[in-house]
Amino acid sequence: MTETLIKVDLKQSATENEQIHNRWHPDIPMACWVNPGDDFILETYDWTAGAIKNDDDASDVRDVDLSTVHYLSGPVGVKGAEPGDLLVVDLLDIGAKQDSLWGFNGFFSQQNGGGFLTEYFPHAQKSIWDFKGMFTSSRHIPGVSFAGLIHPGLIGCLPDHKMLADWNKREQELIDTNPTRVPPLANPPLAATAHMGKLKGEARDKAALTGARTVPPREHGGNCDIKDLSRGSKIFFPVYVDGAGLSVGDLHFSQGDGEITFCGAIEMAGWVHMKVELIKGGMAKYGIKNPIFKPSPVVPNYNNYLIFEGISVDDAGKQHYLDVNLAYKQACMNAINYLTKFGYSPAQGYSLLGSAPVQGHISGVVDIPNACATLWLPTEIFEFDINPSAAGPIKHLDGSIDLPIAYDKK
Amino acid sequence: MTETLIKVDLKQSATENEQIHNRWHPDIPMACWVNPGDDFILETYDWTAGAIKNDDDASDVRDVDLSTVHYLSGPVGVKGAEPGDLLVVDLLDIGAKQDSLWGFNGFFSQQNGGGFLTEYFPHAQKSIWDFKGMFTSSRHIPGVSFAGLIHPGLIGCLPDHKMLADWNKREQELIDTNPTRVPPLANPPLAATAHMGKLKGEARDKAALTGARTVPPREHGGNCDIKDLSRGSKIFFPVYVDGAGLSVGDLHFSQGDGEITFCGAIEMAGWVHMKVELIKGGMAKYGIKNPIFKPSPVVPNYNNYLIFEGISVDDAGKQHYLDVNLAYKQACMNAINYLTKFGYSPAQGYSLLGSAPVQGHISGVVDIPNACATLWLPTEIFEFDINPSAAGPIKHLDGSIDLPIAYDKK
Amino acid sequence: MTETLIKVDLKQSATENEQIHNRWHPDIPMACWVNPGDDFILETYDWTAGAIKNDDDASDVRDVDLSTVHYLSGPVGVKGAEPGDLLVVDLLDIGAKQDSLWGFNGFFSQQNGGGFLTEYFPHAQKSIWDFKGMFTSSRHIPGVSFAGLIHPGLIGCLPDHKMLADWNKREQELIDTNPTRVPPLANPPLAATAHMGKLKGEARDKAALTGARTVPPREHGGNCDIKDLSRGSKIFFPVYVDGAGLSVGDLHFSQGDGEITFCGAIEMAGWVHMKVELIKGGMAKYGIKNPIFKPSPVVPNYNNYLIFEGISVDDAGKQHYLDVNLAYKQACMNAINYLTKFGYSPAQGYSLLGSAPVQGHISGVVDIPNACATLWLPTEIFEFDINPSAAGPIKHLDGSIDLPIAYDKK
Amino acid sequence: MTETLIKVDLKQSATENEQIHNRWHPDIPMACWVNPGDDFILETYDWTAGAIKNDDDASDVRDVDLSTVHYLSGPVGVKGAEPGDLLVVDLLDIGAKQDSLWGFNGFFSQQNGGGFLTEYFPHAQKSIWDFKGMFTSSRHIPGVSFAGLIHPGLIGCLPDHKMLADWNKREQELIDTNPTRVPPLANPPLAATAHMGKLKGEARDKAALTGARTVPPREHGGNCDIKDLSRGSKIFFPVYVDGAGLSVGDLHFSQGDGEITFCGAIEMAGWVHMKVELIKGGMAKYGIKNPIFKPSPVVPNYNNYLIFEGISVDDAGKQHYLDVNLAYKQACMNAINYLTKFGYSPAQGYSLLGSAPVQGHISGVVDIPNACATLWLPTEIFEFDINPSAAGPIKHLDGSIDLPIAYDKK
Repeated sequence: MTETLIKVDLKQSATENEQIHNRWHPDIPMACWVNPGDDFILETYDWTAGAIKNDDDASDVRDVDLSTVHYLSGPVGVKGAEPGDLLVVDLLDIGAKQDSLWGFNGFFSQQNGGGFLTEYFPHAQKSIWDFKGMFTSSRHIPGVSFAGLIHPGLIGCLPDHKMLADWNKREQELIDTNPTRVPPLANPPLAATAHMGKLKGEARDKAALTGARTVPPREHGGNCDIKDLSRGSKIFFPVYVDGAGLSVGDLHFSQGDGEITFCGAIEMAGWVHMKVELIKGGMAKYGIKNPIFKPSPVVPNYNNYLIFEGISVDDAGKQHYLDVNLAYKQACMNAINYLTKFGYSPAQGYSLLGSAPVQGHISGVVDIPNACATLWLPTEIFEFDINPSAAGPIKHLDGSIDLPIAYDKK
Repeated sequence: MTETLIKVDLKQSATENEQIHNRWHPDIPMACWVNPGDDFILETYDWTAGAIKNDDDASDVRDVDLSTVHYLSGPVGVKGAEPGDLLVVDLLDIGAKQDSLWGFNGFFSQQNGGGFLTEYFPHAQKSIWDFKGMFTSSRHIPGVSFAGLIHPGLIGCLPDHKMLADWNKREQELIDTNPTRVPPLANPPLAATAHMGKLKGEARDKAALTGARTVPPREHGGNCDIKDLSRGSKIFFPVYVDGAGLSVGDLHFSQGDGEITFCGAIEMAGWVHMKVELIKGGMAKYGIKNPIFKPSPVVPNYNNYLIFEGISVDDAGKQHYLDVNLAYKQACMNAINYLTKFGYSPAQGYSLLGSAPVQGHISGVVDIPNACATLWLPTEIFEFDINPSAAGPIKHLDGSIDLPIAYDKK
Repeated sequence: MTETLIKVDLKQSATENEQIHNRWHPDIPMACWVNPGDDFILETYDWTAGAIKNDDDASDVRDVDLSTVHYLSGPVGVKGAEPGDLLVVDLLDIGAKQDSLWGFNGFFSQQNGGGFLTEYFPHAQKSIWDFKGMFTSSRHIPGVSFAGLIHPGLIGCLPDHKMLADWNKREQELIDTNPTRVPPLANPPLAATAHMGKLKGEARDKAALTGARTVPPREHGGNCDIKDLSRGSKIFFPVYVDGAGLSVGDLHFSQGDGEITFCGAIEMAGWVHMKVELIKGGMAKYGIKNPIFKPSPVVPNYNNYLIFEGISVDDAGKQHYLDVNLAYKQACMNAINYLTKFGYSPAQGYSLLGSAPVQGHISGVVDIPNACATLWLPTEIFEFDINPSAAGPIKHLDGSIDLPIAYDKK
Repeated sequence: MTETLIKVDLKQSATENEQIHNRWHPDIPMACWVNPGDDFILETYDWTAGAIKNDDDASDVRDVDLSTVHYLSGPVGVKGAEPGDLLVVDLLDIGAKQDSLWGFNGFFSQQNGGGFLTEYFPHAQKSIWDFKGMFTSSRHIPGVSFAGLIHPGLIGCLPDHKMLADWNKREQELIDTNPTRVPPLANPPLAATAHMGKLKGEARDKAALTGARTVPPREHGGNCDIKDLSRGSKIFFPVYVDGAGLSVGDLHFSQGDGEITFCGAIEMAGWVHMKVELIKGGMAKYGIKNPIFKPSPVVPNYNNYLIFEGISVDDAGKQHYLDVNLAYKQACMNAINYLTKFGYSPAQGYSLLGSAPVQGHISGVVDIPNACATLWLPTEIFEFDINPSAAGPIKHLDGSIDLPIAYDKK
């Protein structure tokens, strides 16, 4: 039977678990070691390690300390792995912890993190999702149920010192262009809340000063939040340090392309069953800079979509130049507005786009000056018909249920 | 038998055909009229109306006059259509003209149009694709063959005067921020090369002064270049003028998400068989600003992908803030570099990404400061195995074949 | 441009066309020759060569002379093909004739051919299907529309003399077990209505005496009526004679697994664009007895099914031993009965199962004494919801429209 | 958290567990009760309750006592269910027992059960399959790995007395036509090894005399062995007794259409998470005789097939009349012969067809005298390319590994 190399106790503080860390740094010692060809299981906290509760009060989302995330399980050392190799990871299976069969989706306050549509949704809100086998539904968003496309939001190998220095330098330079921005442009290292796994004492304190924050995806993969990197996928990760140092966390029961709600997908605590192998010297052989992967043979088959277009003109009518971000925002808002015709609140629509297996495509990106992005909403996840018809839409919801909201404290 | 309402003769100049136009303007008279419920066929030129030839010389791409495009078939008047309606268009089928069973893909010179990766590919190049039934292959890119995901790059209804004025105003304001840029930020109206269909004399001259260029997608749809808006799709278009005025052109045998090569997808002359119906007052009923659509039940089933990630750090190592365009560029360059390991030239790789049914996803767009985009390359379109393996890649091509190139004239 | 090697004129009698034949015999001369690697187009009659009309009278189905079918286009000689080779055929595309954009489905009278459910539907009936681009619908079966999974019902190479003799011997032995059965167990050669292509005079008369009828599928393929052998497929055919002698006909716009209605799928006149290549000695290399094939990358994506089970107990309650035919009959009747709850007549239901892209699976075939077969009915082809619900079914049809019927003459 | 209503201890004899039964009889008391709308978990033994071991000795398959199977978990009473209702069952999830992450596939001896191809494979053999997350592979069949399409082979509701009597009568009548046949035509009730759940003493003894054996599928569903009735499916079962009495067992990690190897699919012990609801009077409303179901939205996506045809002519060259069973046997043997060209033994090929997600279609069933069946072999489950090519097949296996075999005792 496959061994569980890292266990987490959801009742214990993540900072007490030496096989957990929340920064990227080459000095973090391996939490455990495996051989190429081994398969093993790692348990994980949810990305906030329990900060968000299964209740109807969004104040936990409003008040979350974002300097503490993400709590990752690892690093796992792989014997024989050397810089320049590719670490081949098969995600054999992923699931929720049996004592925690629920997840959360939320919007951060614009004052504390924000999100893709934070101008439209500036206040902290959340929705809770229950898992019943392969399926999930939310008491805060009636009329919707779907199968999970379960995946780790965050997975990758430790950077080496040179790469870490590059990360910190380039991100600080960006911060310096507008250091007081809310939300910030990027997050610099912060020693106070750094949890460096087994690293203790002076060594910990020193490394904590430069340990990279886990929020952004980077060359090594990391917090890519790619919904399709799901259970059953095969991933090829660049290796930068001896032993590779693979860490994983931030599991999602489901997510839409973009993870637009930021807090986040449908976030859960769980476990990952994976197998590792090596392609020696694979980075140079294949010219690999960022990870590449092959999708799973087993993914939810929701193929009937309603597709919304967006272009890079903002709400004030101003023309932007080939701006895919703006085009995708417009496509998202078009979908949200559409859903309101069936009785959903805008917040419910926003939460759905962050949670359900929604696709976001870069459809046209050369036709100056407008980029065109498309948002693909699967229609089969709804209990009623949301297609347009000559009869017009039917309001299936009466507005009595909405997402909990927590306004910023004055 | 279904009537062909607009015919094009590929040997005739498009400007001599009164059922063709290359600007958007509400004063362009309907080329023909249909009733709701009718199905009919429209023939179309390729978007350049024959400027690009089936040969091995890219000078035609280099020298193309972009002020003349796109040559559209229409506008088709739909009886009873009024502003505020939705025009429901079923694309019953689309095909190439029987006397023109080929298409082209190209990169414009950076001096004359450019493209998504023009910094990397500044010179005019092209590839020619032959159609054999449902499949296409190119003598300039060996080892690849795939089924077409045929679609119109450009389709939409006439704007009203107010909308047209808004378009011209906002685009001019963008141009004014950097009027000498090469390539330009946007294209203003240009009367000289405007072809206004049946509109003649003074009326034509007046309208030509404000006729919007056809390159960008806009609220009405237009040049969206969405590969999934393919034969078999059902589209819901906003109607702005009495009779709707539906025009179509710029047919593509196949295209990758983003149409990154700009000149363009696999461009072809052909025909569209479509059916129209109306949802009266549908724009308000459904809160529609941009078109929405349902994809076809019949699309190529290439489901084995190799997925490349990109993040918003540029080649100089500079950090950009949640920039999906840059992230997608990086993902594209990662895929192109990967393909070179199997013997493709970078230009062949670039052309493939513009031509094949490649997906581009906005995977993560909130994890400050890095956006994450993914480029999905279907592996089944290659005659050989392009998956990574411990053995390393095999060079299947010897470099003897490449895309024709035409350097800018001094 | 691809050459059309065999043309058919729907106004001309098929028996006057020397590139058409309706029997299998090695002495039939090649209608034309091609080289390996060539692609070419063959036009075809519908399988009856015009005996069934686009009208509302089923007497043509009742009175059809089944000794005349199927009218095949060919044989095409492939240079260099020898017995023991595999002929690799790519079905590059298939379509209806532009002057004949309709097809028919019917049930033969039990006295003249019958069908899979002839005990339940003993009289001649038919439905006519119109083609609009990729889609078809029937004025005789309201509420249904779907994309065609176009395929040749019949395709294969000429037998050699030894194989032909085997066919005739074994089929005659079967007939001899019950020679007066109606419908017959098999059809022996019949010289009177044999059309042997270019073969004339005595040679024709001699060959006609032993020319195998085209109804059954046999080792060479032939009338397999496999719906998935559709446009875009690649087939590997055994070769028995020098030049291979490939013939094709009996095109179907769509068909359900089993072609249960016999007369037949949605039958049409049309054309096939194909390409041929050889695997020398391929039969022995791969141990091939019957053709094998790879399905198309482009097939209709109707994935929401309602699945009906059937077991091998007959309507009288008698138990049969692992009888898949009976199990499938029961599954079909279960589906037909279900459809009547929504207002369809049993005949409309039967016709749908023969015409639409219905799947028939051999689900369990070892659990003595009951075989279990499943009939997969795609729900997306209906304009209304046919799923079960607590509210019960809604009758969407009022019974005013049904299939034409023609009773047997007394 | 969802309650596990029936637990099984794999170390305990199934006959000691009162929530298990191995016969169908309306007098078996409900093992537990639930309300409509409830979801719950049932654990199950493998169908033989541990008779087949995870070792390399097939004597357990040879010597199995088939009168003891199948060990089912249930019956579950559903409050308010009445005869004539439809019981709607959502299979929310299914998995293997964590202490038993393996399964078996085998062929029974022709003297003790046989199988679909028992003439070709008359001796007991088996293969053992290990589960690693979503995937399985066998030490007895190298070069193959695939994701499970997990499903219960057996599920259904209790019959009423009338239906039970009909079953026993019709099956005995079949047996009586050849009572000494080996293997038998059907299995009559057998009191000795009947396990009637909570039913004890005289009541048990009396019911055991008429308790129907569990091998065949029947009107209520039962042992349908439909691979597509998998986790995520929704099934509509006829209800015959008050409380419905739903039982389930015979879980399969994967199976090919037909379950041709009989012993069986990839058989495993495990658990089913399900939810029940009622459609009152649903049998009459929808004309339901056998269960109907909707497939899962989450199934393995192996879409590249090599398809083998078979017709109803036997190996001796004898013609049979529209015999789908024989046609499917021929298609299976064609596939097995093909696989030997790559180095597999025939037994390995046979086991693969019983275990992998192979499709079996009733392709043509009216073209007298030949039925045509097709066997769809997914090519992506192989670690090497099994497609035909001009170069001919490569033997990837050296024959050193084969399935254990146990010859019949003399």
